[in-house]
Amino acid sequence: MQSVDQTRDWLLSQARPLHTSETVSLLDAAGCVLAADIVATLDVPPHDNSAMDGYAVRAADAANVLPVSQRIPAGSQPQPLATGSAARIFTGAPIPPDADAVVMQEQAELQDDGSVRFTAPVNAGQNIRRRGEDISSGQVVLQAGRRLSDADIGLAASIGVAALPVWRSLRVAVFFTGDELVEPGQPLTAGKIYNSNRYWLVPALRRLGCQVLDLGIVADTLDATRAALREAAASADVVMTCGGVSVGEEDHVKAAVEAEGELQLWKIAIKPGKPLASGRVGDADFIGLPGNPVSGFVTYAVLVRDFLRARMGEAVQAWPQARQLPAAFEWNKPDARREEFLRVQLREQDGQLVVNRYPNQGSGVLTSCAWADALVRLQPGQRVAPGDMVAVYPL
Amino acid sequence: MQSVDQTRDWLLSQARPLHTSETVSLLDAAGCVLAADIVATLDVPPHDNSAMDGYAVRAADAANVLPVSQRIPAGSQPQPLATGSAARIFTGAPIPPDADAVVMQEQAELQDDGSVRFTAPVNAGQNIRRRGEDISSGQVVLQAGRRLSDADIGLAASIGVAALPVWRSLRVAVFFTGDELVEPGQPLTAGKIYNSNRYWLVPALRRLGCQVLDLGIVADTLDATRAALREAAASADVVMTCGGVSVGEEDHVKAAVEAEGELQLWKIAIKPGKPLASGRVGDADFIGLPGNPVSGFVTYAVLVRDFLRARMGEAVQAWPQARQLPAAFEWNKPDARREEFLRVQLREQDGQLVVNRYPNQGSGVLTSCAWADALVRLQPGQRVAPGDMVAVYPL
Repeated sequence: MQSVDQTRDWLLSQARPLHTSETVSLLDAAGCVLAADIVATLDVPPHDNSAMDGYAVRAADAANVLPVSQRIPAGSQPQPLATGSAARIFTGAPIPPDADAVVMQEQAELQDDGSVRFTAPVNAGQNIRRRGEDISSGQVVLQAGRRLSDADIGLAASIGVAALPVWRSLRVAVFFTGDELVEPGQPLTAGKIYNSNRYWLVPALRRLGCQVLDLGIVADTLDATRAALREAAASADVVMTCGGVSVGEEDHVKAAVEAEGELQLWKIAIKPGKPLASGRVGDADFIGLPGNPVSGFVTYAVLVRDFLRARMGEAVQAWPQARQLPAAFEWNKPDARREEFLRVQLREQDGQLVVNRYPNQGSGVLTSCAWADALVRLQPGQRVAPGDMVAVYPL
Repeated sequence: MQSVDQTRDWLLSQARPLHTSETVSLLDAAGCVLAADIVATLDVPPHDNSAMDGYAVRAADAANVLPVSQRIPAGSQPQPLATGSAARIFTGAPIPPDADAVVMQEQAELQDDGSVRFTAPVNAGQNIRRRGEDISSGQVVLQAGRRLSDADIGLAASIGVAALPVWRSLRVAVFFTGDELVEPGQPLTAGKIYNSNRYWLVPALRRLGCQVLDLGIVADTLDATRAALREAAASADVVMTCGGVSVGEEDHVKAAVEAEGELQLWKIAIKPGKPLASGRVGDADFIGLPGNPVSGFVTYAVLVRDFLRARMGEAVQAWPQARQLPAAFEWNKPDARREEFLRVQLREQDGQLVVNRYPNQGSGVLTSCAWADALVRLQPGQRVAPGDMVAVYPL
């Protein structure tokens, strides 16, 4: 058996970059992976400006009652400040030449003749946002390989960029094998179960930004599986299946991938999970998830998702450091040889955050995955008593 | 000034439910809010089934060499187990009547005559997944008000449900005021800045599942603002603006909402932030965010997002308990009266997770929001020295 960390590292090392980027408008770029560094060609803010509604003055004049010599709304272009005067100014408006401070309106008293008197000491520089204090021209504001957040898109807008170069979306073909599978909405005949893998996997891939080619259930024969593989590989970057990769004689995916391409079949020291297949069919990568829904879900979350992210051009970080939290559960039957990933919920108890596990951790119990908001990672042989600190990864 | 918690509670109390649900196919339901409880009408798994590839037997017979009397692939319907025999069985296949255990194939030796001998003790019940161990018929598997995760969709599939009732999407109209605003891609003339609020807000609303009506920049006049408000309110559930809600005489949003509907304008004890407007125009809710991009971003994340989630029918939980982590920064200039939400990053340092703050916490510095992965919440007057524990909320 091969360790979780080894498998993860190997998969990430195999993630070939995409070679095609495209330029998309800002609002379409959210959630995409940036294909090139974005460099600012202007300062942000582009001019010294007022942080307040109030009066722009020379601090040296501010002890005097001052006539108001101009009015500067945001978006306007001020005149130089007349000597011995104040300028009415609004938040965001450019500081007029020769002014060096802004007095907030709450500290200004307007006189009957329209002049203004300040009720607090005024220091040079106060309430002025300096040109370039956010971004300097020439600065890299967003780095290639970044998955673009809402704030990133706002930041690109703030330097006037209207479109961004992003990697094209990854095309992922999926199909599902197993003669026991029936699609939801169809009647369930004896011996059959509903196909659930399709329904967590396709949304997960879409949410990652993949373009999903969903081939549905493929008949459990070698010929049908080979045909599906060829079809999938012809049009996708990555082909994914659920099921059919254990050593059982009813499993055709393994033989089909070997016939159409190349395959590594791993036993990974992970529970739930264990079998994971990786390979190539034509120019497409192949990933074969285990068929048990929980095994597939956990294997995807722990091992495959970051492979796909890297394959999409994203700069994938090392695993986030696990959060250490006290268990509110017992775990007395550890697996001697495999790491276990328990489905857990974080809950407040006596003002403290603790970890509860779903009672039935069986690999067929998909309810545990819907219930969970995190995974607890246990080392081989690790038992847990209530109060023990455990390593928590959010889902 | 009104506290952050008071404001949040008030907003949530004002979130009127939607009254229209629609039934969408499973794969379109991911990320939507469930409009009714989903009750299982079958057991999952629907039959006792094998957890392994191996042999189904009566445990009492298992010490003997047994002939193999049938072969049960997944999806098939087995015969009762012939007395004194074993059945070849595969993962997920139904347990034949009269068998009470499965022996994994690694513990079975096939004899030359086709019979099988087991190399380990066999206990009744072993390697059998029981009917209904995941879900029992009649059980509520998903509760109304839940935002449907990938695993939820898989779970619904596992009980054969092909479509789900979800609340219709919330229609949110947005517009942006300020004569200083220029759209990205346009030349920046003197005194102007690029509109960045549109570009973080629209993706944030879309990611939440809102249908966004984006009216862009509206001229900074009372008439134009009133016209935009009427247009927005006629077709949206919620109207949102950025800017124009402070007390300055250049701000028309306040007067426009008062003329077209009703408005509460709050000074909230939050930094960055402070002004937030809430009201009604026609049958639409109105939310006026502050115009500084960072103030708007933080106010949205802390106060408005959960209002929208509740407005979408989602059962919004109390705030998650903050995570207490050591600061790797100093904060010596607390606001005496307002809570502060600093933009921070969590980083590993000497094997421990610590909190760094963005150096410039100015409310115009949008770079701090793109850089941050969390907010630190400080109480009024709270100073921070390196090593102090601070309250962290992920963004």
